[in-house]
Amino acid sequence: MQTNQRIDGQRLWTTLMAMAEIGATPKGGVRRLTLTEVDRQGRDRFAAWCRALGLTLRVDEIGNMFARREGRDPARPPVLMGSHLDSQPSGGKFDGALGVIAGLEVMRSLNDLGLTTEAPIELVNWTDEEGSRFGHSLMGSGTWAGVYPREKTYALTDAEGVRVDAALDAIGYRGPEPARPFVADAYFELHIEQGPILEREGKTIGIVTGAQAQIWYDVRIEGQDAHAGTTPPGVRRDALVATARVIELVDRIMRARGEDGRGTVGWLQVAPNSRNVVPGETRFSVEFRHPDFAQVQAMAAEFEAQAPALAAPCAWHLTELFRLDATPFDPGCVALVEQAAARLGLPARRIVSGAGHDAVYVARHVPTAMIFTPCKDGLSHNEAESIEPHEAEAGCQVLFEAVLARANRVPG
Amino acid sequence: MQTNQRIDGQRLWTTLMAMAEIGATPKGGVRRLTLTEVDRQGRDRFAAWCRALGLTLRVDEIGNMFARREGRDPARPPVLMGSHLDSQPSGGKFDGALGVIAGLEVMRSLNDLGLTTEAPIELVNWTDEEGSRFGHSLMGSGTWAGVYPREKTYALTDAEGVRVDAALDAIGYRGPEPARPFVADAYFELHIEQGPILEREGKTIGIVTGAQAQIWYDVRIEGQDAHAGTTPPGVRRDALVATARVIELVDRIMRARGEDGRGTVGWLQVAPNSRNVVPGETRFSVEFRHPDFAQVQAMAAEFEAQAPALAAPCAWHLTELFRLDATPFDPGCVALVEQAAARLGLPARRIVSGAGHDAVYVARHVPTAMIFTPCKDGLSHNEAESIEPHEAEAGCQVLFEAVLARANRVPG
Repeated sequence: MQTNQRIDGQRLWTTLMAMAEIGATPKGGVRRLTLTEVDRQGRDRFAAWCRALGLTLRVDEIGNMFARREGRDPARPPVLMGSHLDSQPSGGKFDGALGVIAGLEVMRSLNDLGLTTEAPIELVNWTDEEGSRFGHSLMGSGTWAGVYPREKTYALTDAEGVRVDAALDAIGYRGPEPARPFVADAYFELHIEQGPILEREGKTIGIVTGAQAQIWYDVRIEGQDAHAGTTPPGVRRDALVATARVIELVDRIMRARGEDGRGTVGWLQVAPNSRNVVPGETRFSVEFRHPDFAQVQAMAAEFEAQAPALAAPCAWHLTELFRLDATPFDPGCVALVEQAAARLGLPARRIVSGAGHDAVYVARHVPTAMIFTPCKDGLSHNEAESIEPHEAEAGCQVLFEAVLARANRVPG
Repeated sequence: MQTNQRIDGQRLWTTLMAMAEIGATPKGGVRRLTLTEVDRQGRDRFAAWCRALGLTLRVDEIGNMFARREGRDPARPPVLMGSHLDSQPSGGKFDGALGVIAGLEVMRSLNDLGLTTEAPIELVNWTDEEGSRFGHSLMGSGTWAGVYPREKTYALTDAEGVRVDAALDAIGYRGPEPARPFVADAYFELHIEQGPILEREGKTIGIVTGAQAQIWYDVRIEGQDAHAGTTPPGVRRDALVATARVIELVDRIMRARGEDGRGTVGWLQVAPNSRNVVPGETRFSVEFRHPDFAQVQAMAAEFEAQAPALAAPCAWHLTELFRLDATPFDPGCVALVEQAAARLGLPARRIVSGAGHDAVYVARHVPTAMIFTPCKDGLSHNEAESIEPHEAEAGCQVLFEAVLARANRVPG
């Protein structure tokens, strides 16, 4: 029982606020786009905090940062924890930063308590989780995990044509370490839920058992531009009316799955998009998610079977972008999170992550679990993103206990 | 009976092609934006053609051009004919130009045939029918008709901030004549249909009896941005799903009126318009048209009554932009068009204009009628706009006969 060993919630919050100063926006959010000068300032501050604790910092070829605290047994692989410091263009103070700063608080508390763990512990700041600048989310963890080849990642460019490798060099964060998986004992990531479930149910801790399965599409519907005043109903091929029927189909397919289904058209472009012209073409995104891959496949099959007829008399062009199976997290790591929450008497529930996280790619090589804490109104990717200090403290305490338990476990 | 007096169809076509050289685009269309250097070239060429015929040219304060052929009786008010020489940014060769060049061919034929009409005849090139540059369609005829105050028209600016009066001065077409209605006997405008009805029914001539009634709206639907992966169906307020239901409502209301109804969402903007975010807000246009104002009002009433409930749980914000009664054209002028088509044995039908035309504003002060000719696939506002030479010739012949009949009628 370790409930008398406590992280410092006040220090955690103060440090979160200190990080939020870097790239702070007038509306109370953060704009800390990956590999920019602002990101460099955030990384530098984080590195200084780590060095002050006596941690050893490594930076890999893609800018991922690893701050290591040695354990008693140098032969044991490290227990990892972390998240990301980059933000959306109009992001909040906690998405990503909570997991990194909570990891820092774990390190500080271990020092304060004079604890030496059996295994070493490493705190990670993954590069470019958001994908807002180079169009590729989970870039740092994906490259590390071997999902994206390093040279392809380097060649990605932002809206101004700046390449990833040039951006890394410009802020001095292209490190010497190879960006590839190394042997690690476990990975724990604390993150805000970015959804409304925990808040609605009054839970402080989400025990994340895995990530949803997903299928993403691009659709183009091709009708015929026509004058809105002169073209009678019978001869219209209105791409936007066809699209409206498809949007409703996506919504119906989602709702038929109850609480666990997701189906969204988030992006839509209309051409020529002129008041008095019947739209001749639309392009839009469609995505389905569900904790169960079989369900996502069934949703996709219904969609593919029914949508073309709804789009008629317009032509239907479908491109599948990817199909991603569900990622179940490691039962042993998930159990450590669950036990810590129970031991602390925190209201908790098991939950499947609807968002993508670095943990999903890390889980391909390392036993992984995540901890969610609530965010106000489920709001994220938004400057109004907000959390309660006592919930951040609770999440950090669970992280502390899970990491400590894992680092001290009897190997077997 | 005047069927032995013929316009020259070959000369009409050659002159149309000569005008189409000015602002010609690689794809076979025309870019002759109002009050640009290209428009000046078109105006200069038109003015030279008019002067070569001995016509007297007047230019008014807003750049409208009037080319006058005297009649036998100087006390009689003139019979007007014309259209516009400006084009859409990616426009066709015939939208507007057909009516002006056909009027020129009428003047040439009158000269060739040695005819003196009782009343004078004036050929008009109205400034900025399209509204593409200054955002205000029917600008020249609307200012002339007193719908838009002259100083307000002068103060309109294009995307570069150039004012209308400065643009008129820059090309030397701010004339001394006041832009206000003068006494005229009639106005006839030949124009391509810009719709598919004549072509589909195999008619060469559309006897335009008036212009449709219209109601235009702007709508904003306000939901809540949310993460597409984490937000369950029950708590979503998806502005795009709400919009889809409203788009289908507009389509249903249109179709319930049969052939004569029009209902269109041509413009739609989605925010934040990001793949993995449930859309929090949409803005879009809605317009209804019908030849009968009572029907348009009924369509609008159904829309206003049913849409808010379809948008729920999102918030519904409606702004009515304008309500325009139908414009019936003058029965005497319409009869002259109908009689000419019958005398010439041309397949014809009565039709209501779905598009706006200078004739709609001129009709507020002068007895007016229009003549439509088919265009391929009903296509207009497009570089692929296409018409048949024999149909242009037929339309011009009808214009010739209607104008001649009106100019020679026994007043009473």
